Formats: sequence, C-alpha cells, structure tokens
Amino acid sequence: MKSSSRIAVYPGTFDPITNGHIDIIHRAAPLFDRVIVTLAVNSAKQPLFTVAERLGMIRRSVEELPNVDVGQFSGLVVEYAHRVGARAIIRGLRAVSDFEYEFQMALMNRKQQPELDTIFLMPDERFTYLSSSIVRELAQHGGKVDGFVSPLVAKALAKKYRIKR
Amino acid sequence: MKSSSRIAVYPGTFDPITNGHIDIIHRAAPLFDRVIVTLAVNSAKQPLFTVAERLGMIRRSVEELPNVDVGQFSGLVVEYAHRVGARAIIRGLRAVSDFEYEFQMALMNRKQQPELDTIFLMPDERFTYLSSSIVRELAQHGGKVDGFVSPLVAKALAKKYRIKR
Amino acid sequence: MKSSSRIAVYPGTFDPITNGHIDIIHRAAPLFDRVIVTLAVNSAKQPLFTVAERLGMIRRSVEELPNVDVGQFSGLVVEYAHRVGARAIIRGLRAVSDFEYEFQMALMNRKQQPELDTIFLMPDERFTYLSSSIVRELAQHGGKVDGFVSPLVAKALAKKYRIKR
Amino acid sequence: MKSSSRIAVYPGTFDPITNGHIDIIHRAAPLFDRVIVTLAVNSAKQPLFTVAERLGMIRRSVEELPNVDVGQFSGLVVEYAHRVGARAIIRGLRAVSDFEYEFQMALMNRKQQPELDTIFLMPDERFTYLSSSIVRELAQHGGKVDGFVSPLVAKALAKKYRIKR
Amino acid sequence: MKSSSRIAVYPGTFDPITNGHIDIIHRAAPLFDRVIVTLAVNSAKQPLFTVAERLGMIRRSVEELPNVDVGQFSGLVVEYAHRVGARAIIRGLRAVSDFEYEFQMALMNRKQQPELDTIFLMPDERFTYLSSSIVRELAQHGGKVDGFVSPLVAKALAKKYRIKR
Amino acid sequence: MKSSSRIAVYPGTFDPITNGHIDIIHRAAPLFDRVIVTLAVNSAKQPLFTVAERLGMIRRSVEELPNVDVGQFSGLVVEYAHRVGARAIIRGLRAVSDFEYEFQMALMNRKQQPELDTIFLMPDERFTYLSSSIVRELAQHGGKVDGFVSPLVAKALAKKYRIKR
Repeated sequence: MKSSSRIAVYPGTFDPITNGHIDIIHRAAPLFDRVIVTLAVNSAKQPLFTVAERLGMIRRSVEELPNVDVGQFSGLVVEYAHRVGARAIIRGLRAVSDFEYEFQMALMNRKQQPELDTIFLMPDERFTYLSSSIVRELAQHGGKVDGFVSPLVAKALAKKYRIKR
Repeated sequence: MKSSSRIAVYPGTFDPITNGHIDIIHRAAPLFDRVIVTLAVNSAKQPLFTVAERLGMIRRSVEELPNVDVGQFSGLVVEYAHRVGARAIIRGLRAVSDFEYEFQMALMNRKQQPELDTIFLMPDERFTYLSSSIVRELAQHGGKVDGFVSPLVAKALAKKYRIKR
Repeated sequence: MKSSSRIAVYPGTFDPITNGHIDIIHRAAPLFDRVIVTLAVNSAKQPLFTVAERLGMIRRSVEELPNVDVGQFSGLVVEYAHRVGARAIIRGLRAVSDFEYEFQMALMNRKQQPELDTIFLMPDERFTYLSSSIVRELAQHGGKVDGFVSPLVAKALAKKYRIKR
Repeated sequence: MKSSSRIAVYPGTFDPITNGHIDIIHRAAPLFDRVIVTLAVNSAKQPLFTVAERLGMIRRSVEELPNVDVGQFSGLVVEYAHRVGARAIIRGLRAVSDFEYEFQMALMNRKQQPELDTIFLMPDERFTYLSSSIVRELAQHGGKVDGFVSPLVAKALAKKYRIKR
Repeated sequence: MKSSSRIAVYPGTFDPITNGHIDIIHRAAPLFDRVIVTLAVNSAKQPLFTVAERLGMIRRSVEELPNVDVGQFSGLVVEYAHRVGARAIIRGLRAVSDFEYEFQMALMNRKQQPELDTIFLMPDERFTYLSSSIVRELAQHGGKVDGFVSPLVAKALAKKYRIKR
Repeated sequence: MKSSSRIAVYPGTFDPITNGHIDIIHRAAPLFDRVIVTLAVNSAKQPLFTVAERLGMIRRSVEELPNVDVGQFSGLVVEYAHRVGARAIIRGLRAVSDFEYEFQMALMNRKQQPELDTIFLMPDERFTYLSSSIVRELAQHGGKVDGFVSPLVAKALAKKYRIKR
C-alpha cells in the first residue's frame, strides 16, 4: 500500500458489533483506500464478549469488504491512528445524545493530533436508536434481536446469556 | 372486563413514586378503560426501597382512581403488556434528555410487539425537572421534598435515610 | 356514538398529508373510539394546496379506517376539540426540534382547557426526518417523493408544480 | 482526472463565505482527490451578495488549495453531485440545532441517490457559533467581523452596507 | 450613582412584556446595583405594539422596583451596554431551543466587547414554555392569556386585536 | 465585609480544576463583591485527587484574584450558600447536555432556598467541550493536557498517574 493512500480508522468497543456499525463500515469503505475497524480494548470496562470473541465477530462481518481490515488498540485512538498512518477517524452519529460526546472526543483528539480529523457518518434511519447496550439488554431478557445484529452475533448472544443464567 | 376494553401499562422503577408519576397516572386514567401501574423489578439495579415498599407506596397513591391497578414484572415490559392484554405503554416525557432514551425504548419495544404502541404524556410543568433520583439525593442530605412526593413517601424517605446513616 | 365514547383530534396543516401523518393516524385509531383528523385553516400561512385539495387528500388517505373522520377548524384547536367532545389531542413527535415546540403548544392548550390533554405518538423511524415542507421542496425540484407520500399525493404534487413553473 | 478519483461537493449559500466555511474546506481537501465548493443558487432566497460576488469571494478563499474547485447549481444538490461524479457531500456540523436539519437533508438526499453519502466535519471550536447570517447582522450594525471572515469579505460587507444605508 | 456601581442591561423586544420577562427582572434586580430593561428597536421586524406602547407596558411592570430603569436602543446591544457603563447583559434561558441562539449571541457580543459578559437566569418553571409570540397567537384567537401576562398587558392585547380584526 | 455585600458561591468537584473552571471564575469575579469557589465533598464519589490536593490546586489558581476565596462543603450547596450569606450560585454552561442537568439542580435548589438564585455563565468557546473527566482520561493514557489545565495541574496529573500505574 503506497504511502499516499488514504487510511481511516473506525474505533469502538463493538460489544457486540451491530447492524448499525456494519452500515457505517459499508458507507466508509468507498470513501477511503483502506478502513481499519479497530477494537478499543479498555481495561476499565467489563465487556460481555472477550476481545477474541469481538474481533472474531467483527472479522466475519467485514470479510466481504476487500479494503476493510480489523485491528485493536488500548490507550488513545489518536496514537493508534498515527501509527497506522490514518488520515481520519470515522464515527457514526445517530442522535443528539451522541452529538456532544462525539464532538468532545473529536476536539480532544484534534488537540492531540491536529493533522488527523474525525468524520461523521449517519447510519440508515433504521439504526438511529440502535446500540450495543440495548441489544445486550434485549438478548438478556430473551427479546428478539434479529434485524439489529447478524445471525452470527444473535447466536453468540443467545449462547452467552444461556451460560450466564 | 370485556375483551375489547383498552388497557395501558405504565411501567417504571418508582424508587420512590413522585408527584410527577402521579400526575401522569391522573392524565392517563381517563384515556383508557384500565391503567396498570407496573413496577419493573430489575435485579441489576440496587433500589433504595424494596419491591414491597414501592408497591405499597404506589397502591396508596392510586387508590382513589377506580380504573388504575398496580402490577409488577421482570424482564421485558412488552411481554408483560402482551400478557395482560394491553394496547399501549404509557411514558412521561419531561425534557430533551428523556426524549432520546424513551424513543430508543419505544422503538425496541415496537420491534418486539408491533401491535403494542407507546404513548407519551407530558407532566405538569412543575414536574419538568423532577425525578426519583433527585428526590433521593435531596432526602439523603436533609433537603425539603414536599411538593415533589406525597407526605407518605416523604415520611418513608426520612425513615430510610435515618436508618441508613 | 354514545356520549362516553373517547374521541381524539389530530390537527395539522397537512400541506400535503405525508406517509408520516398516515402512520400516526394508524397508530392512534385503535386507541380511541373515534379519531378526527382536522385541518387547521390558518389565514396567515400561504399553503401550496387549497383547503379543498388538502381535505380531499386526507379523506382518501383514511377512508379505509372506519373510526377516523376528517374535519377542519380555524382559531384555537382546543375550542374545536371541546366542541366535538374530544378528550385528547394527538401529535406526532419525530425529533428533538419538534419536542420543544410541541411541548409549548401542549402546555398552552392545557391552560385553555385543562381537562383536554395532548398525547404524543412516535412515527415509524422511516419517517423520523419527514415533513410536508421537505416533500414540497423535493417535488418542486423534481426529486423523488415516493415512499414519503401516497401515489395520489405524489401526482397532485407533480401537477401543482408543473402548473406553477 | 481519472474516473476512479474521489470527488466531494461542499454545497452552501455562502452569503458570504466565513472562516468557518474555509476551515471545513481545509479539513475536507486532504480527504478527497477533489473538492468542489458549490454555490446553491436558490431563486426563493434574497441573498445579500450576488451569485457573481459570492463566487468571487469563494474563489479567492480557496485559490491556494490545488484540489479545490468552485461550482454552482440550482435545484437538488444530489443531481449536481451525480453529474460531477461526486462520491460524497460535505457538511459542517456546528451545534445541535444544525444536527437535525442536516440529518433530514442527508436522509432525503440519500433517498434520491443511495450511492452518494453525506459526511460531516466539525469546524474548529472558534467557529462553533458562527454563521453567515450573524456576520451579516453584525456588519449591518457596524460591529467587528474580523476573525469571522477574511479581510476581503469584511471589506465587501462594509461596502455593501454603506451602499444600502 | 457612583462609577463603580454594577449595572446590567436586560435587552429584548418585549412585544409584549410577559410574566416570564418580569420574573427574570425580579431575579436580576437584587444581583446588581442597577438593572436597565432596554427595548431593542429593530426596524426590520414588524412588532404588534409600537415602541411607545411597549415602553409604557415595561415601565408599569417594573415601577415597584427601585433599582430598575427602562431604556431603548437600536443597533448592537453591546454598544448600548458600553455607553451606559454596564458590566453584564442579562438573558433568560428557558429551553434547549433558546440555548444555542443565546450562546451564539453571547459569543458574538463578547467578541465586540470582551469586558462585558452575558449572564443567564432561569425563569420560574411555570414560564419555561412562555414567549411573547405564543401570547400574541393566543390573544389573536381569543384564548386566555391571564397567568402569562399582567392584566394591563392582557387588556392592551384585547384592544389591539379588536381594532385589527 | 459589610452585610449588604453581594457574595456568590461557585460549587464543583474540581477533580482537577481546569482552565474552563478558571475562565468562569474570572468572569464571575467582577460581577460580585466576593466569590467563593467551593469544593463539593461527596462521600459517594471516588475522586482522583484528595480534598487537600484539590483545595490546593484551586487556591493556587485563584490567588491573584483578591475577591475570590476557597471553601468546601458536604451535603446541599444551598445550605452552605445560606450559611455564608451568598445571594447567588454560579454555574458554567457549556453545552446542551449540561443544560438540563443544571436546570434540574437550579430548580431543586430554588425550592430549598427561594431567595438564592443560580446564574449561568458561558466559558470561552475553547472550553466548550472541556471537562475534568476528559482531562483525567487523557492524562491517564499519556495524552497532552496543556491548554486544558494549568502547568501545576498538569504536573499533578502526571505524578498521580505515574504512581497509579
């Protein structure tokens, strides 16, 4: 990959990856030479799925997209982005409540690495109110999650909560 | 009660029931044949009042309303609503911060049970900024809570925090 | 229709009626004995469609719903609602920008007729960002409006803008 | 320019172009092979500056950026974007009030041309509350506009309002 | 009044002055040595009440407050504030929709006169959704405005709309 | 200090004090005879810095301002404000997400002490998205915090996280 290629990173905890995330990845892919979906490994949070499980689900979700890779990082996303030579950080914007937190993060990241900018993409309106946490809550109580996550993820959720109960 | 009667459920954690909740119940009662105020029993949250205490306070608050009953559920509210034959879920909308969370829940519930809809009612403006959590915080520090909760609840709060201190 | 029946009015300018409006009407119909979709005739605004045209499009849109009627009023909606014996005013809530205006109107209406309340319904998320004005703007510039309005309304829009150009 | 190059359009009324607009253009330029700043010529609005004046000010503002061009269109931006082979529409997002209007437009545009997406960029926080209309209002009353617009635009504003008074 | 006294201006169009405005004035008065309620005379807007009528209604509303005066200005409020030696501009903040416009104005004013700051006060929650425009709309259609404006203003509104019809 | 002097308290957890807080203090100081920056000591929260460390950093930040003192309280801020004879509580308002929480607190405080009001000040736009928690997060991961906090605080953060790692 030549040095002038445009790379973007799409960071998240993806616990688990939802159809809203996948929608954003499909929108970002044609805009860049390479998109790296990158798992934020945060020691403080207690995720439902392990790092390996989440990376596996992300990989299976993007395998059909030739210019999309999967990565992981801990610490500051801007350092990771700088290391891989990214020009942009991608974030999905769903609703007003996202807006201010995302802007705060984008500005803080800009201070760290001014030459690296955040671009916001809007998911399909079917995913406006979708989040990993609501998917987990539904799955935990036996609710339907199809339409919100892939069949693979739905199965992983069912298994996880069966074991946990 | 005939099968065609219109039933609505008004779910919440009611920890404790406030005058804002009671205001919503009084607005919902004339719109339906039956309104069931139903306590969401969520094992994850650590409430201040026990299930029995909360149910008692709700019952005392609605006893004058002939078509209002009290119930409880754990898990998904849509399953409870379906079981009792409800046509609608009632939610109070106070401010913008409520709005997006409530819409997210309403959409997720709609996916689970499309024939069951959420209706939103607006409390009296005196209760726009009232919540159970701020009432608990005030009571904990010896602040005045009259006007926000019934005398019964105010007494229960005083007792609870005396014991806890 | 017996005096104790529950009637709701759904007011609007409906210039023209969109699939978002129709979605709200379908959600409101099972909640009340009778729903009156009522055209606000406001001398100040300069609508695209005449009162007769708008009433015609509304009527065609709701003719399959047995408990939905069509009306019109000028002045204050609360006076109309009182005259027809309505217990509730129905409003669709789409997004945060709706929220504050709608709450302002609901509170003002409540001051005028305290026994008459406003209930808010949420349209399908496909219609979250739909409005009559954006439909007019699209139609004016030859954009596609199918999915946003019925074929009947699409045709009326095409005709209107052909004449106007 | 080869057919696979990534082109983006940045539409607006630019009446006049502000430092906030210029900030967005500088952020967009490195992300695309070519960015076309394109003036929306809307017969309904009565702008302060003529089309020629606005195009002139935009051209002067971007002349140092080799991959930024200037264009104009009337009607729907998606048609223009399609015609020039653009893959994305660029919009600046400043504050919550922008958010919902921009999302509405982005969704409507997406319906018209699904393969064309809108990306949102955040201006420097110094420009969060800046708009062409507030610049016009300040200039009209003799307020200071330096820091908000380029010296060229400041001069044009001074001249315009002297003539108009 | 000695030169070191703290003066604040409370600008607005007051068309007409509402109980929400009066509530803000009562809150501001004890915080400053002198508060000047000052009418923004804007040639562009077409107010319902004349400048003289509005000034008269404001004067009657504040006559009991010894440290509150009434003024008027055209152009930029910061110039007026500077001329009268004010240290602060007072604004009421009611709801989210106010927020961004008010912040925009406050920042623009700060650029003009950095040593002059805007302070925001929150009206009583009864006035959260009150505005002069909704009062005019109610009055125009014969709605009740008591509780929203003083008896004096209510009378002036009734007279104005009787004449206009 | 004479009894009629105007005192304001500026409460917060200041964990740590940021340049945004200092900006608000500099804006508040000329508006009052005395401003007390007062540390809310909340047993429930687990702060990064001890009470003594936070008080020390606040004191160093305000030592050049002759009419600014430093205090501390636990429980309700209104009781503290009443005890020190304050007429106003000062709060910074940065963004919409602040807005509703701050209004809720201001209304609750007003119920407790009606004669004590909250005034809101807007920080410089450079600090719109700044908070103590984002500063801690940056510092924890080795990000740059200069521009967000004073050199003194930056050093304290570096030391704290070195020890903790």
